[in-house]
Amino acid sequence: MDKQLRIGVIGAGRIGKLHADNLVNRVPGAKLESVSDVNLEAAKALAAKHGVTKVYDDYMKMLADPEVNAVFICASTDMHYPISIAAAKAGKHIFCEKPIDHDLGRIEEVLTEVKKAGIKYQVGFNRRFDRNFKHVRKVAQEGGVGEVQIVKVTSRDPEAPPLSYVKSSGGIFMDMTIHDFDMVRYLTGSEVTEVSVFGAGLVNPDIIKEGDVDTCIIMLRFANGALGVIDNSRQAVYGYDQRIEVFGSKGCITADNETANNTVHYTADAVTCEKPLWFFLERYNEAFVEETRSFVDACLNDCEVEVGAFDGLQPVKIAMAAKKSYELGGAPVKVQP
Amino acid sequence: MDKQLRIGVIGAGRIGKLHADNLVNRVPGAKLESVSDVNLEAAKALAAKHGVTKVYDDYMKMLADPEVNAVFICASTDMHYPISIAAAKAGKHIFCEKPIDHDLGRIEEVLTEVKKAGIKYQVGFNRRFDRNFKHVRKVAQEGGVGEVQIVKVTSRDPEAPPLSYVKSSGGIFMDMTIHDFDMVRYLTGSEVTEVSVFGAGLVNPDIIKEGDVDTCIIMLRFANGALGVIDNSRQAVYGYDQRIEVFGSKGCITADNETANNTVHYTADAVTCEKPLWFFLERYNEAFVEETRSFVDACLNDCEVEVGAFDGLQPVKIAMAAKKSYELGGAPVKVQP
Amino acid sequence: MDKQLRIGVIGAGRIGKLHADNLVNRVPGAKLESVSDVNLEAAKALAAKHGVTKVYDDYMKMLADPEVNAVFICASTDMHYPISIAAAKAGKHIFCEKPIDHDLGRIEEVLTEVKKAGIKYQVGFNRRFDRNFKHVRKVAQEGGVGEVQIVKVTSRDPEAPPLSYVKSSGGIFMDMTIHDFDMVRYLTGSEVTEVSVFGAGLVNPDIIKEGDVDTCIIMLRFANGALGVIDNSRQAVYGYDQRIEVFGSKGCITADNETANNTVHYTADAVTCEKPLWFFLERYNEAFVEETRSFVDACLNDCEVEVGAFDGLQPVKIAMAAKKSYELGGAPVKVQP
Amino acid sequence: MDKQLRIGVIGAGRIGKLHADNLVNRVPGAKLESVSDVNLEAAKALAAKHGVTKVYDDYMKMLADPEVNAVFICASTDMHYPISIAAAKAGKHIFCEKPIDHDLGRIEEVLTEVKKAGIKYQVGFNRRFDRNFKHVRKVAQEGGVGEVQIVKVTSRDPEAPPLSYVKSSGGIFMDMTIHDFDMVRYLTGSEVTEVSVFGAGLVNPDIIKEGDVDTCIIMLRFANGALGVIDNSRQAVYGYDQRIEVFGSKGCITADNETANNTVHYTADAVTCEKPLWFFLERYNEAFVEETRSFVDACLNDCEVEVGAFDGLQPVKIAMAAKKSYELGGAPVKVQP
Repeated sequence: MDKQLRIGVIGAGRIGKLHADNLVNRVPGAKLESVSDVNLEAAKALAAKHGVTKVYDDYMKMLADPEVNAVFICASTDMHYPISIAAAKAGKHIFCEKPIDHDLGRIEEVLTEVKKAGIKYQVGFNRRFDRNFKHVRKVAQEGGVGEVQIVKVTSRDPEAPPLSYVKSSGGIFMDMTIHDFDMVRYLTGSEVTEVSVFGAGLVNPDIIKEGDVDTCIIMLRFANGALGVIDNSRQAVYGYDQRIEVFGSKGCITADNETANNTVHYTADAVTCEKPLWFFLERYNEAFVEETRSFVDACLNDCEVEVGAFDGLQPVKIAMAAKKSYELGGAPVKVQP
Repeated sequence: MDKQLRIGVIGAGRIGKLHADNLVNRVPGAKLESVSDVNLEAAKALAAKHGVTKVYDDYMKMLADPEVNAVFICASTDMHYPISIAAAKAGKHIFCEKPIDHDLGRIEEVLTEVKKAGIKYQVGFNRRFDRNFKHVRKVAQEGGVGEVQIVKVTSRDPEAPPLSYVKSSGGIFMDMTIHDFDMVRYLTGSEVTEVSVFGAGLVNPDIIKEGDVDTCIIMLRFANGALGVIDNSRQAVYGYDQRIEVFGSKGCITADNETANNTVHYTADAVTCEKPLWFFLERYNEAFVEETRSFVDACLNDCEVEVGAFDGLQPVKIAMAAKKSYELGGAPVKVQP
Repeated sequence: MDKQLRIGVIGAGRIGKLHADNLVNRVPGAKLESVSDVNLEAAKALAAKHGVTKVYDDYMKMLADPEVNAVFICASTDMHYPISIAAAKAGKHIFCEKPIDHDLGRIEEVLTEVKKAGIKYQVGFNRRFDRNFKHVRKVAQEGGVGEVQIVKVTSRDPEAPPLSYVKSSGGIFMDMTIHDFDMVRYLTGSEVTEVSVFGAGLVNPDIIKEGDVDTCIIMLRFANGALGVIDNSRQAVYGYDQRIEVFGSKGCITADNETANNTVHYTADAVTCEKPLWFFLERYNEAFVEETRSFVDACLNDCEVEVGAFDGLQPVKIAMAAKKSYELGGAPVKVQP
Repeated sequence: MDKQLRIGVIGAGRIGKLHADNLVNRVPGAKLESVSDVNLEAAKALAAKHGVTKVYDDYMKMLADPEVNAVFICASTDMHYPISIAAAKAGKHIFCEKPIDHDLGRIEEVLTEVKKAGIKYQVGFNRRFDRNFKHVRKVAQEGGVGEVQIVKVTSRDPEAPPLSYVKSSGGIFMDMTIHDFDMVRYLTGSEVTEVSVFGAGLVNPDIIKEGDVDTCIIMLRFANGALGVIDNSRQAVYGYDQRIEVFGSKGCITADNETANNTVHYTADAVTCEKPLWFFLERYNEAFVEETRSFVDACLNDCEVEVGAFDGLQPVKIAMAAKKSYELGGAPVKVQP
């Protein structure tokens, strides 16, 4: 009851604000201790909203504060690595948004530092905390579908980001599919060993010139022999389409989209239901809360985080193999073990 | 932003704890200022949980505190009336659990005092804040089904209370159906003018000897000409069954039960989905939060509460007519205007 | 295999054509032997369509044909009684459209003649052969919901008939609800002992002047103690709304509407499904086939029909009680035992 | 009305019996004229069942009968080619079960003979006549999902055939997936240009030694730029799993499995729905009727068949490419144009 985790949030952008709000309003045991952002005004605004007085434009100052037990790394992707290293060295528990980095060497270095420091390190794969996916995983892990044979993920964003974003995003596999790569590992409890990708620029053909795609099918082979498939689109005009299915020797379990309500409206024209929730902030609203609760619990009670640093490493390896397969026109590519 | 409603919770039982938790953790602008209960230990425990220092065994002491702006009346039903009167006289905004009272004269008196005091008075008809029912009401009020002709409510509890509870509950109509009476008023925007009831003791025949029933069908006639029907059971073994339907000249809209997740599990034996959420604490979890948010907003911003004192009066009148109809073997009984 | 039932169809209107088509094309063991209609041209047209040569303008001529084993009475309601009596006396098996008559004495007379003649007599309550309702009945009868406590029927036509039809129809209870009265007997396996009705003219207020209603709620009490409710509307603009629910001590089972297909269409505007099938010809298409198959089987193999003459009598009694309850403003009325 | 197609059925096995039954009982305008089977007893039994007197043990005798207008080729796959050629030369319309052959040269020869003879030639891709898939195709072709970008087919059999069957079946791609290859062409209206396959023996690993698989994921690329994916399993223990989805620039449309009824059963243990219909005879029961109706109509009214000889050729090409991709460990393989 009395335990409290004093948390500094690094990065006061959209996701930093989200986590700060949840930590303050929804997570017992969490205390928002300080806020840091290279844009000091942004940090000040977020801090003021929650009555926080410690505000920094340099995360190293936050790390120097002995009252801070843990940090949330919500800065831009390129800063995940240096902040992770510094925070680990400072002995702070770390919650880091995905991906840890685009470079395997740097991620391995983070893993090493985390181990050395003996701290908790959780990666922001929020979807694992979705009530539906969590239940599917539970049933699958308990043998409810027998031996897993096929896992399917439908994952489509409601609207494509601007091409300018694409250039710095690391591409669809590293930016968007990475969540799905995490999901298939989570659902099967097995590692991906090989991928094969068909990709296309069907939403905006110009994306091809950037070396990226906006529509793709990804076949997967798992260490345990199972097969998988992910289909992605950057633009599903009806909303965020997030469905999964795990099929095995004894059955199948599916999870559908979430909607704002379950009403059905019958008129002379049509029978209509609600559309899927618009995007990740709506769909994974509760999952964002749950992942921070889970992290705070793990830190306060010294138990394993549910999504560790290794879970941050593996999807990056798969994304790299996927990109290569796409570049090879769909040739199967082994995932680095 | 800066506004704050300082709230005293009167009654530290199940529902008092629920509201206190929500006010502290989920409702911006709310501050739990004090707790009162005739059982002082219960009050102390709840206060301690939330770091509150003002604790009383007499609600009059709480009402005397000028720092308290509003009270939540979560005491036993027989205390709703005297506390309401006293709190109104003390100029506190009031959130009162349903029913206000079983006596129309006393409820009218509360309405008079509330008006005189110029305070906010909200009744705890939490279901109005359920996301599904709220949407159905919105569509119906906007003409989405044309002129409303039939409204249907399925409302079944998961397990019957002990007969000892029944004796003090005021009977099924006043204790359980009262929520449904509120719901049909909410959905149609029209007053119930006449009811006719078939009741039976099918879960536990002994209930008949107590002058009560555990299973019933209630027909309703509305001032606007529409018809309605409610069916109740004290025991639906599969969980809390809460569904509604509004049918009219241009269509129909339905709202279904809520479940813990939307997964579907296919095996050689069966295709199974989740059962309805077990009971009101699970099903109306978010609705409880929303009703307190709504109340706090109304107080802080001086706007109309969504469920006023008059809304507390009308369902009691309908419940009285329903009881009489049951006693008359199903004869139609006019609701007191 | 070799057995054949040679059938004469009396009445070449819509329902006569439907049965003739089904007998010819879908029912093994049935042979359309002859057609009769007071409108000889109509009889000739139907006979010609199926290559039948025996055509009459007087059903007595058909009954005189020793090669005819069975007749389908598809004439106007007022002719059901005299044809039933004559056909029974002639020793023909009889399939008669509902209702047998509006007069209990005449129906009793039919029952007596049927018994005397030792023939099969089936009443056209086609809904009993709907795949969904049949399954609900089966589960309920096998104890799948425990002791039945509440039965609910939603039954709404897609469009109201002209007032001119209403005048000769016997009113909504005898013309439309009679199917629902049969359904609740079928589902519960128990007789209705008492009804109470709220009715209104919400589709066309002029119907009230004809002593009829177009919208109603009907409460029912059963001999086994269960309660029931039917809601009817003459006009559900979204199509034929036919749903049932049986609730009991161990659970609940529901059957939903049928649609032309099960596709779901997601667009930026809405998520749409198919509307319920438009009316009884579409919805009960297969049920019409099944009821004639069942009748032909019962005749050929000398087993019990699934909907006997007694089943034709009881719903008429309930309809009479319902009409009286409506006229009494909703007072409960006992059904004649 | 008067037109009649006199049909000879070649092959009196399971599928021959099915078509004969449908032609006799469900298809207006069709007359079962004769039956042929190398097993004369089987032919006699089927003929006797339908009162047919022309029975042969050699299809050439049937083809010599000038009264026969059309033949249904329901013999073993290796006989499809020679019978097709002979029947075309004899000027009979032809309905041929899939696949026409496993050899492209022979199929091309059939196409040539069909063209020369000016006859109708329909291939037995029955799924095109499923009410759900037909509607999805219609919506997709009418632009209801905009430009098609992703097509998905889930196609899983309820139980694996014995290994002995596998050896003579031509393998999963030619035997089972060929229906799905037809379906994706039907849904997209575009040709498959390239495939990539991950396959495995997860139901019975021994199948790998036969050069076949029982579980696979197949990626597809279409001429119009769209992407597709099929997932197959030889054994879905919960029944025949047949679902499709077409996603595009303006939305998405899905079709689900069919069940025996739409009831939902709620108990203290679970909420259960019906399982998917067991296998193709149940699921595509009406589709089999519709495909024969469509063929008979095309012959009688001289209009285009809905599934022509070219539609029999293309899926075989795709199946060949799929097999090769599997053998290459998932490498993308171009489909022969």
